[in-house]
Amino acid sequence: MLMGGDLEDGNLGPYQDRLRTFPNMRGKSYNPLIFRILRRINVRVLFVILLLALGVVFYIGASTSPIIVFVFSVCIISFLLAMHLAKWVLAKDEGPPEMGQISDAIRDGAEGFFRTQYGTISKMAFLLAAVILCIYLFRTTTPQQESSGLGRVATACITVAAFLLGAFCSGIAGYVGMWVSVRANVRVSSAARRSAREALQIAVRAGGFSAMIVVGMAVIGIAILYSTFYVWLGVDTPGSMKVTDLPLLLVGYGFGASFVALFAQLGGGIYTKAADVGADLVGKVEQGIPEDDPRNPAVIADLVGDNVGDCAARGADLFESIAAEIISAMILGGTMAQRCKIEDPSGFILFPLVVHSFDLVISSVGILSIRGTRDSGAKGSIEDPMTILERGYSVTVVLAVLTFGASTRWLLYTEQAPSAWFHFALCGLVGIITAYIFVWITKYYTDYKYEPVRTLALASSTGHGTNIIAGVSLGLESTALPVLVISVAIVSAYWLGQTSGLVDENGVPTGGLFGTAVATMGMLSTAAYVLTMDMFGPIADNAGGIVEMSQQPESVREITDLLDAVGNTTKATTKGFAIGSAALASFLLFSAYMDEVATFAREPFKQVDIAIPEVFVGGLLGSMLIFLFSAWACSAVGRTAQEVVREVRRQFIERPGIMEYKEKPDYARCVAIVASASLREMIKPGALAIVSPIAVGITFRIFGYYTGQPLLGAKVVASMLMFATVSGILMALFLNTAGGAWDNAKKYIETGVLGGKGSDCHKAAVTGDTVGDPFKDTAGPSLHVLIKMLATITLVMAPVFL
Amino acid sequence: MLMGGDLEDGNLGPYQDRLRTFPNMRGKSYNPLIFRILRRINVRVLFVILLLALGVVFYIGASTSPIIVFVFSVCIISFLLAMHLAKWVLAKDEGPPEMGQISDAIRDGAEGFFRTQYGTISKMAFLLAAVILCIYLFRTTTPQQESSGLGRVATACITVAAFLLGAFCSGIAGYVGMWVSVRANVRVSSAARRSAREALQIAVRAGGFSAMIVVGMAVIGIAILYSTFYVWLGVDTPGSMKVTDLPLLLVGYGFGASFVALFAQLGGGIYTKAADVGADLVGKVEQGIPEDDPRNPAVIADLVGDNVGDCAARGADLFESIAAEIISAMILGGTMAQRCKIEDPSGFILFPLVVHSFDLVISSVGILSIRGTRDSGAKGSIEDPMTILERGYSVTVVLAVLTFGASTRWLLYTEQAPSAWFHFALCGLVGIITAYIFVWITKYYTDYKYEPVRTLALASSTGHGTNIIAGVSLGLESTALPVLVISVAIVSAYWLGQTSGLVDENGVPTGGLFGTAVATMGMLSTAAYVLTMDMFGPIADNAGGIVEMSQQPESVREITDLLDAVGNTTKATTKGFAIGSAALASFLLFSAYMDEVATFAREPFKQVDIAIPEVFVGGLLGSMLIFLFSAWACSAVGRTAQEVVREVRRQFIERPGIMEYKEKPDYARCVAIVASASLREMIKPGALAIVSPIAVGITFRIFGYYTGQPLLGAKVVASMLMFATVSGILMALFLNTAGGAWDNAKKYIETGVLGGKGSDCHKAAVTGDTVGDPFKDTAGPSLHVLIKMLATITLVMAPVFL
Repeated sequence: MLMGGDLEDGNLGPYQDRLRTFPNMRGKSYNPLIFRILRRINVRVLFVILLLALGVVFYIGASTSPIIVFVFSVCIISFLLAMHLAKWVLAKDEGPPEMGQISDAIRDGAEGFFRTQYGTISKMAFLLAAVILCIYLFRTTTPQQESSGLGRVATACITVAAFLLGAFCSGIAGYVGMWVSVRANVRVSSAARRSAREALQIAVRAGGFSAMIVVGMAVIGIAILYSTFYVWLGVDTPGSMKVTDLPLLLVGYGFGASFVALFAQLGGGIYTKAADVGADLVGKVEQGIPEDDPRNPAVIADLVGDNVGDCAARGADLFESIAAEIISAMILGGTMAQRCKIEDPSGFILFPLVVHSFDLVISSVGILSIRGTRDSGAKGSIEDPMTILERGYSVTVVLAVLTFGASTRWLLYTEQAPSAWFHFALCGLVGIITAYIFVWITKYYTDYKYEPVRTLALASSTGHGTNIIAGVSLGLESTALPVLVISVAIVSAYWLGQTSGLVDENGVPTGGLFGTAVATMGMLSTAAYVLTMDMFGPIADNAGGIVEMSQQPESVREITDLLDAVGNTTKATTKGFAIGSAALASFLLFSAYMDEVATFAREPFKQVDIAIPEVFVGGLLGSMLIFLFSAWACSAVGRTAQEVVREVRRQFIERPGIMEYKEKPDYARCVAIVASASLREMIKPGALAIVSPIAVGITFRIFGYYTGQPLLGAKVVASMLMFATVSGILMALFLNTAGGAWDNAKKYIETGVLGGKGSDCHKAAVTGDTVGDPFKDTAGPSLHVLIKMLATITLVMAPVFL
Repeated sequence: MLMGGDLEDGNLGPYQDRLRTFPNMRGKSYNPLIFRILRRINVRVLFVILLLALGVVFYIGASTSPIIVFVFSVCIISFLLAMHLAKWVLAKDEGPPEMGQISDAIRDGAEGFFRTQYGTISKMAFLLAAVILCIYLFRTTTPQQESSGLGRVATACITVAAFLLGAFCSGIAGYVGMWVSVRANVRVSSAARRSAREALQIAVRAGGFSAMIVVGMAVIGIAILYSTFYVWLGVDTPGSMKVTDLPLLLVGYGFGASFVALFAQLGGGIYTKAADVGADLVGKVEQGIPEDDPRNPAVIADLVGDNVGDCAARGADLFESIAAEIISAMILGGTMAQRCKIEDPSGFILFPLVVHSFDLVISSVGILSIRGTRDSGAKGSIEDPMTILERGYSVTVVLAVLTFGASTRWLLYTEQAPSAWFHFALCGLVGIITAYIFVWITKYYTDYKYEPVRTLALASSTGHGTNIIAGVSLGLESTALPVLVISVAIVSAYWLGQTSGLVDENGVPTGGLFGTAVATMGMLSTAAYVLTMDMFGPIADNAGGIVEMSQQPESVREITDLLDAVGNTTKATTKGFAIGSAALASFLLFSAYMDEVATFAREPFKQVDIAIPEVFVGGLLGSMLIFLFSAWACSAVGRTAQEVVREVRRQFIERPGIMEYKEKPDYARCVAIVASASLREMIKPGALAIVSPIAVGITFRIFGYYTGQPLLGAKVVASMLMFATVSGILMALFLNTAGGAWDNAKKYIETGVLGGKGSDCHKAAVTGDTVGDPFKDTAGPSLHVLIKMLATITLVMAPVFL
């Protein structure tokens, strides 16, 4: 065990090598600029500044609505709780020095990549902000703006500021996810030496910390923006903006969030899966060494990838989901309240913020319900971690139903339609049930307790080819049930809303779309807990890696393996949840887009008629965008993985001592290869996603101008958006489920069936797993973000299509 | 070479075994019932009957329009030419007896399967015919019908008769394709012993024979139906039907054709690829024996599959494409002529029939231009067969442009808009160019002369996993260019038509949709030649198999390998062509559907607004249908292939002498397994395709009734259709291209690069090839048919959605 000895001596040759090959990783401090500035300030001064800021925020909130004060309070309490959780996690021991050293290497890699990646992203964000500014400076003004006296310059500045704030917060959300995971991983490893239950608790609380921050930041960010605009623009005073139009100003925030989330997911996803696939193909398939074996030169890159890909990217992803969903629901609530001439519309507008405030409360209860009761530590006697997590989820869901009912009664009760709140409460229930069924369906298709994955494992016994065919079919087939569920959810929520009794001045029922919005909120009403379960996965995965790398005894590995397997399932189910909410949120944003176009065009824009050839073509292009985007995301992973494979093979050939633990592999070269490749590769698909709707919109706007078809650009973009949403949902479901199923089919075989580890059947299953990696962790989750980014980009860019 | 000796002795043990395991394959004659009846009749009597029938047909044609007489004449000349080609092919020698015996075994297997398969299909067709009859007996009548005095019973009978005729003709088209291919294969093998050029010529002429029959039958079938209805219903006489409404009665024909084509493609596709994948996985990957090696027990099943899957199914597929396209263009031509009050609308209605008559003429020229000039027979000196085929294609395309221009001037010239014909000629040109670009794009992505396949081959060098990832990305990416091309084609053809000068009574331009229809015709104006190139592939493939099985010298194999490689490329390009025309035809049928609904509902039905939640849900379900259908098609192949793998492995273990040519493999068991499995497996996806649009339509019709939304069922089905079309096009492009590229990447490695045959790289490439098999030959081509079947089924079933 030369390797272990080396680590104990503190002789970290490979990491010193990295200094040479990836120098900008070490020199700088681990903290971003803002943290460094904050640290230099005297603590007392900082405390005073913080108190002052809080005072201002509360003052603005109080001038807006008591609901905002409630939201602020809950968010701040959640932040305090999150800090408590972080403190609790950080107080745990980091284990023996060999673990700490590996964890340091992972942290270095992750933070180094994060800095470079977010550097690139922020440059692009500023460029895009400049473009938005130009567009808004030259766009036409809406009647609302004219009546409110809000000039072009003011609108442009508001949109750009919201965009940049959204982008910044999304970045912070990603950073927080990664920050805690690179610190918790080693503590989970260390705790695994003592007790499975304690390890589980640390991973859950670490995940809970970032979930609280992510959700809380999304909510408080929007609340601050909303109340600032409210006070600044003197909303609802004569001659100024109406409160029902206010939410449209927040759209930039959602776009900023999804913009950053897209690139975070792409870059991180390519990083993590290229390293993983490369490590597996040479390590597992060719050399037959286990996963995360210290002899594999790509293993550190793989572990770094878990943090930048899964933690940071998923943090940004869920942040963006919640932000997009809140904003679209606020817009729809405002529009409906205006149409129905509801006296105090703020309840309808602020409803989503309250739902997510309750989300923070109930999810904390769920997280804290997972206790670290000491167990014997032997595998046989410990409770299945999945059962523990699911019990916490059940607690959260039950509380969600109760608080949701309470919130609807509190905010959505109106004398015009006394039973409306009950209808909306049922819509929320539809959403909660949909989320629950989604989680169940994903589990059915990806857990090896059930038929589909077992059939897939059986298909591996007849070779690589049949395994891939079976996996692809499984993934394609798994789209059916979620689509049926989401279809039922959309139609039933719409009709519950439509029959709520809310009517416009002509007596036409208008609550339908808001009903769908409420269902979306219901679906996301346990977001913080779900995000916790999701974050749990990569932390457990990393902990397992550290245990393996530091050559811990078998019993410790068994515990982390168990946690890792549970993490795989929770990761897969979260994706089902994310895609379901993306589908609903997208449909809402689409409606908001149509309202927005109608406002700008000063004429009704109610229909997107796909019988018009150009509109049909827009749909074709939208679906094609999804295919092309997925292609580029997958091929980026494939290409980078090939580079890793060649590098790892080269190292095994040039340093034959590696396999006998006599030579150290050069981990740093793999880290450097993956980092630079993923930064390079994330640009192409990301640019495609941003440029193509704008290009299509402008092209057809010009074409429509010359062929005498008004609003053609806006219609074509609308159809592009809808087709892209539908294809994107299906493609993401396919990619996520196929990937998860392949992963677990491999794990199933590793439990000893069909020949177990090392058999031909296992090799075929590993091939499936490597194919599934870019599906489920790069292209799939990027599609969630893409769908919503398309919706927000069309909303923000709407003026250029007219 | 014990095997060869056995064959020469006429001791075909395995085939006698089959008698036991698959008894219904041998006892019966090779000819279907109708052929047997015809044979029993005295030749002179037959001749007289034929002449009489011809006379009646011509008389009816002459009473309808001189254009119909022209169409009849061309079709009959083409049939005569086809018979000449068949005679020419059959006059060629069948080679040594060992070849003949293998060919007999293939023919037995193919014809046995064909009979059983079409028995099942015809039962389902009659069942469906009964359903249609019931629906039409209870449906509401349209104003047109009332004015023409056409009762419900008459309409019902017409639709059902057209449906059954379409189904019957589609079956014949499939049978003819298979009939010639099982006879030509051995003749090509035999000719390959003499000269590559002669082998090429035989394969091309055999393909030409079935192409002529398929296209000719589609044209003459519709022409006969049209003129029969014309004369029978006394069209255009006072108080009866108008000629512009006549084409709507033909819809049943298209539905019947696509119904049979769907099941033919599914059953045949599952058969051929299950056998192929099973044979490859054990033979090539595990045992390392070459393709089509006589030691492989699944080899006969594989060769049978080429005939039932590629020849029979593709015949039915193209027959259906042409029928659907002609009918939809006739409907649109009629509608437009009526709106523009054109005096003699028959030119516009019969235009598609004339275009395809010219197609027959110019394609014969193209086919006959491929001459069997003797060459030395050595590989170095022979011309690349691809060049020869492409030269023929160029000749055909040039002639197509000329004849298309002439036909537009002849039929589409009207004094109301003197320059309209020129606009439509340009639309045709757009179609021809689109077809040409499609063929080129497919070649670029699937031919190993170009970058994409070479990159894919390189990805195989890093393992099975990266090969699959690269192939999937390649396939997904390859959807982009065709979609852009088709988008440009749709929009430009629509605008050429719209600006043609044809206006309705209110002065609104109305030629747009007909312009798109003309572009579709332009695209299909070389269909017979393209089908010839397509049929060439499986014949060459089979010939190669026979050469390999009968242990011919290396030089003969080189020739058939060369032809086989060319066949792969032509097969892939034809699929690009088929999917392009399916996209356009579907868009036309969609318009026809909207007209149909408007007629039944007696109110305008102009818009399909995807902003309505139910309509959006319809779209979701439509796209999901495509994913689920593809899943079931692929998994059917996967499951059956696993059965084959287990059977082949069992034989290799239980009969160890097989590998040393000391024992005969039991070919018949593999044939029986594949045949029964594919018959069983084709039902589920096929039923899904037929039932789901009807179920969705009826569900939303009822839902719409209770929520007060008129026409909801029809709208939801329309949106389902459009989304399914878009997703289907993309999915089919993905599946076809990925499959073709994997196949050729493997072939590229087999030329000796990257380690050549037997290397690890080659093994990874074979995995890709097996994955690609169900993609490109089962799911992909079934999707072409599915798209059009959905369009025709909604047209026929329209009354139940209202």
